[in-house]
Amino acid sequence: MDAVLIDWGTTNFRAWLVDARGQVLERLSAPMGIRQVPGGDFAAALDGLIGPWRARTPRPAAILSGMIGSRQGWLEAPYVACPAGLADLVAAVTAVPGVPDAVIVPGLSFAGDGRHDVLRGEETQIFGSLGGLAEGTGLMCLPGTHSKWAETRSGRLSEFRTSMTGEVFAALSDHTILGALMSAERRDDAAGFAAGLQRARKDGGLLHHLFSVRTEGLFATVPETGLRSYLSGLLIGHEIIEMHRLYPDAGTIQVIGEAGLAALYGRAFAHFGLAHRLVESERASVAGLLAIRDVLARET
Amino acid sequence: MDAVLIDWGTTNFRAWLVDARGQVLERLSAPMGIRQVPGGDFAAALDGLIGPWRARTPRPAAILSGMIGSRQGWLEAPYVACPAGLADLVAAVTAVPGVPDAVIVPGLSFAGDGRHDVLRGEETQIFGSLGGLAEGTGLMCLPGTHSKWAETRSGRLSEFRTSMTGEVFAALSDHTILGALMSAERRDDAAGFAAGLQRARKDGGLLHHLFSVRTEGLFATVPETGLRSYLSGLLIGHEIIEMHRLYPDAGTIQVIGEAGLAALYGRAFAHFGLAHRLVESERASVAGLLAIRDVLARET
Repeated sequence: MDAVLIDWGTTNFRAWLVDARGQVLERLSAPMGIRQVPGGDFAAALDGLIGPWRARTPRPAAILSGMIGSRQGWLEAPYVACPAGLADLVAAVTAVPGVPDAVIVPGLSFAGDGRHDVLRGEETQIFGSLGGLAEGTGLMCLPGTHSKWAETRSGRLSEFRTSMTGEVFAALSDHTILGALMSAERRDDAAGFAAGLQRARKDGGLLHHLFSVRTEGLFATVPETGLRSYLSGLLIGHEIIEMHRLYPDAGTIQVIGEAGLAALYGRAFAHFGLAHRLVESERASVAGLLAIRDVLARET
Repeated sequence: MDAVLIDWGTTNFRAWLVDARGQVLERLSAPMGIRQVPGGDFAAALDGLIGPWRARTPRPAAILSGMIGSRQGWLEAPYVACPAGLADLVAAVTAVPGVPDAVIVPGLSFAGDGRHDVLRGEETQIFGSLGGLAEGTGLMCLPGTHSKWAETRSGRLSEFRTSMTGEVFAALSDHTILGALMSAERRDDAAGFAAGLQRARKDGGLLHHLFSVRTEGLFATVPETGLRSYLSGLLIGHEIIEMHRLYPDAGTIQVIGEAGLAALYGRAFAHFGLAHRLVESERASVAGLLAIRDVLARET
């Protein structure tokens, strides 16, 4: 039976209509994140976006994931604690009141070693990418505003960590003296990016390295047009070095992201000589949501 | 003979009228940083600020330091390269055209180990604090928007490093999701600050630790009122740990800063069990500028 798979995040809404065999029949993407929904009327927004798909007979189930299930979203779907497998996630889906055959997938939390972490939305990509790992065991990197690093064992997510790389990049670019020095918008200048990655391996720490954006510009060791890429390389380099240190035997790391960002991280992994494989995030989302749909379908 | 000692920074102007023996006769502080000078007319601004002092007979010399000597200031006083002593600094002062008996003290630069660094204004505080070090050898920490860590040997500044701690704190507080979680303006909540320092010692790196501001709030392990202090402790902790790692045998570290900020750093040093001594930055500025005045006076 058909189903509508939905990734409803803070700034974007994405949906896929799939058939019983999991083929994507139609796709939809709209700048209608949970913050953009007029008056917080999520029911009306959902109906406006995928009403035509859902008007069919029989009506396809709707599986929602992402920040829509957060405190700021439609209704809170409480976090499922790690270690957790797909079955734990499915067992905790929350029905949406007033919307038949619609459920929200919960996010995941980790508590241990004196630390807490949370994610919401990435769980579908993580479980959707298990097929690429031998026996479901391995390390995944999901770059973004808040990058997630997830360790899976035998098909279960054992633990994960967040790195605020993307948001820190934006805040430093837009709201410190460093941004004023950057003459280019692009962050894919190869030489600047590589210079940032190299700096990240040096001593002194990130707060010290950040000032080198200024001095590399001042002493023209990186051209102004490469400084934004240099800062990007610096931050991504720090993220990868610190995270890989925790999982030195990770083997081939799966990098799951939107094509451009995944490629940027891919270059950083290659620079550090780390085995990796790129996975397109849309593909991972659909695969994960489909797996959830399949378990739900078996149960009913 | 009297002299006017000036620290003219980006956002503030400070001046001290001293007598021949180095006693401070009068002091002046104004929110007239180089960015606030109307039309960039520094001559008029200086005359307005310290004209009455300079109208005396004989006219006191004026010694200017800080960002006034930068490319964005009155005129550029080129950096003096480290290692450098007070004599090198004095030999490189720049006369101010059209203003008799007025000179600008240059900043310092460091190049080596594949890195560059620069400072301007802190050189007076560094040389003004040498008296606190045995044989002029030791490590100094000057916390601020851009913290400076300076290593001196036999009275000469051998090398230094910048840590963008203060500016990163402001950018993250004001322009990321972390700021939205903070219910208090104060950053001196003792428990929150200590929790941030503790986190800084853990693995995962700064970009990962930053997300803990969110999760500590979410799981209420640090109260909302303590989150700003937690972020402050996290950043200051990272700065100190990374810098101290480079100088493990530093001995007693001199912390030179405005009283409140120096005390905050002092608590962090104490938390990490590092020997330190607090030096009030105004006292250090005056001592350094006086030492420069004395060398200049001997030369003329």
